[in-house]
Amino acid sequence: MSKLKQIGKLVTQNSSKILMVVMDGLGGLSQNVNGKTELETAHTPNLDKLAAEGICGLHLPVGTGLTPGSGPAHLGLFGYDPLEFQIGRGALEAVGIGFDLKKEDVAARGNFCTVDDSGKISDRRAGRIDTPTCQKLSELLNEKVKIDGVEVFVKPVREHRFLLVLRSDGLSDAVADTDPQRTGKAPLAPEAFEPKADKTSSIIADFVEQAAVILKDQDPANMLLLRGFSQLPDWPLFHELFGLNACAIAAYPMYRGVAKLVGMEAYQVDDDLDKEFALLEQHWSDYDFFFLHMKQTDSAGEDGDFDKKVSLIEDMDRMIPRAMKLKPDVVIVTGDHSTPAIMKKHSWHPVPLLLWSKLCRPDNVKEFGERACMNGSLGASFPATDIMPLALANAGRLEKFGA
Amino acid sequence: MSKLKQIGKLVTQNSSKILMVVMDGLGGLSQNVNGKTELETAHTPNLDKLAAEGICGLHLPVGTGLTPGSGPAHLGLFGYDPLEFQIGRGALEAVGIGFDLKKEDVAARGNFCTVDDSGKISDRRAGRIDTPTCQKLSELLNEKVKIDGVEVFVKPVREHRFLLVLRSDGLSDAVADTDPQRTGKAPLAPEAFEPKADKTSSIIADFVEQAAVILKDQDPANMLLLRGFSQLPDWPLFHELFGLNACAIAAYPMYRGVAKLVGMEAYQVDDDLDKEFALLEQHWSDYDFFFLHMKQTDSAGEDGDFDKKVSLIEDMDRMIPRAMKLKPDVVIVTGDHSTPAIMKKHSWHPVPLLLWSKLCRPDNVKEFGERACMNGSLGASFPATDIMPLALANAGRLEKFGA
Repeated sequence: MSKLKQIGKLVTQNSSKILMVVMDGLGGLSQNVNGKTELETAHTPNLDKLAAEGICGLHLPVGTGLTPGSGPAHLGLFGYDPLEFQIGRGALEAVGIGFDLKKEDVAARGNFCTVDDSGKISDRRAGRIDTPTCQKLSELLNEKVKIDGVEVFVKPVREHRFLLVLRSDGLSDAVADTDPQRTGKAPLAPEAFEPKADKTSSIIADFVEQAAVILKDQDPANMLLLRGFSQLPDWPLFHELFGLNACAIAAYPMYRGVAKLVGMEAYQVDDDLDKEFALLEQHWSDYDFFFLHMKQTDSAGEDGDFDKKVSLIEDMDRMIPRAMKLKPDVVIVTGDHSTPAIMKKHSWHPVPLLLWSKLCRPDNVKEFGERACMNGSLGASFPATDIMPLALANAGRLEKFGA
Repeated sequence: MSKLKQIGKLVTQNSSKILMVVMDGLGGLSQNVNGKTELETAHTPNLDKLAAEGICGLHLPVGTGLTPGSGPAHLGLFGYDPLEFQIGRGALEAVGIGFDLKKEDVAARGNFCTVDDSGKISDRRAGRIDTPTCQKLSELLNEKVKIDGVEVFVKPVREHRFLLVLRSDGLSDAVADTDPQRTGKAPLAPEAFEPKADKTSSIIADFVEQAAVILKDQDPANMLLLRGFSQLPDWPLFHELFGLNACAIAAYPMYRGVAKLVGMEAYQVDDDLDKEFALLEQHWSDYDFFFLHMKQTDSAGEDGDFDKKVSLIEDMDRMIPRAMKLKPDVVIVTGDHSTPAIMKKHSWHPVPLLLWSKLCRPDNVKEFGERACMNGSLGASFPATDIMPLALANAGRLEKFGA
């Protein structure tokens, strides 16, 4: 926090504009030894030009060897050290589905599960029920559970996953999970870690009791498990830290949610680059900082579709001239983490990044790709939290430190 | 501090000599895309030879994206983390003009300003009065202000800037600025933050009251503002930390001041490389560590004079054989920060550095320049605080850590 605060003290205002383009899960791996990654395979003349004129490197979203989730990875890009700024599972789930969590709310991540006749868990995910069933069950609970003085929200997420939010005065998130994280055991009691959480603990016990009755005859999802009780974090906001009036353009609620968590304005948009860039153009005069998010690269990686990821990167490349026409002062193109198609999941590999501005000191990198970026002046594994200070410096938005 | 202390415990003595040559503001930028920086343009056969035989890289004076002032930048070169070792504005001003600040003194940075008839500030810098006027006004105050039991020093700095030093027993620097940092307001009262500063606060109020009367009929500088009340920091000294008997050779008071702050002996010299190197030769047998400072490269950068900066770097290059004749064990050539001529000011860009010793492991860098140094074994942005441990190691002055 202290470095963030130091930087905050140096922030100054001008009319510069910073554009941060994030291709989710951008980093990749080659399909065979000495082969090319998705980004290296993609034909990206526009990104290559920015890389040649700018500075390059690969950033570490959380730390060496650590595979980030989307939440922490984006926090790092926004300048918040993900190891320091941690958000509970429940609050993250709320952020992820765009639920408007209030300061006093307590949120939990829920699973619909299956219990046997003796009440022991036989399947923690109720056979991964489909999302429509999850929606039906969530609505049932949302409607029928009644707790005096408490507003109860049960919102479907996906498959067996749901969000529980309790709204009342004097709630605390210091409550233990009811999910024992294994089968053959009964769900646990929601024990309070501290006396101030006694009230919340009783409310949760009441909720679970009522839910057990309501779900009793459902098949296979006849019970639920709760974990990660948490509240909204009390963090310094992006504009307080960096003096930037910022907006997020993202098709998925999760990314708008993380952006809103740090105080950015978030614009919903179809999952369509053309529409995202149209929104960017439309709001260009309204903000100082623009976070533009492309989700599909990550999805293609998770699907193991190497070629599709290549082609999506090329789609983004074709949009770059449109962004440059807006005359941004600083452009950053990167990913939040790596999602190599050959792994079909997020990975720990550092993430290629280029930063372009008229005042950067170009390095020797001539194209945008993992191996090229390893020779960049930003290094082959620099902390993601350095990105924002660099962006501000290149935008002329940081005063001199000391005389 | 803890890393510094660890290193301190390993320090051992021998007869080796370390030379640190600092070209102020050395780091630069090219004038056009794909062009060369000042250092890359300069013909530097002697520095190139040292780079080829030595190890290279670019150091970060304070941190990524942070543009250092001269004070913090030099502290980093001397091994003191500038984010940890911060000095107040007043004390820094004293250091900057070579005022011999004592332990009990309280110093402040002053501005001569203009106030209107109602006492409200109309110009915080009194139209940037010229330095001779500043000298005249400072002498007037220095002579006329009388406070019982307190020695008052008012010293001109430049244009509207002056230094105020109060010398007495039991002073404290926990006093608020009188400078509201904006026009349209009256100067503020020098409020004490803590009871122990009540005495100092009264003395300052008395000073301001007398000064207001003395300056009343001056035009345009009819009032003054004070900020950054501070005392000498209580830091571990360079020779305590590193066991080095050190001297500074510098033409400008600011650099001698920072060197003295960490306990180096400082030699005043004309702004002339020939004289600086003569002084180096003269004192070669007297010290273990020599900090030799060239100011003009920074001035040329701030003037936007690319060609002059190139030619000054070439001047330094021609002095290198003279230094090598003294048979130093370790030679470091670097800058304190970057001052690209195209920016006409200090910048955040990492600073080229070469370290030569008979025991370094030469890397692949063959010439001394920004892009060449990016490929050096020290990396393209290593912390400046690594320089001193490296220098000591190469001088054989650090024992093994652990058994």
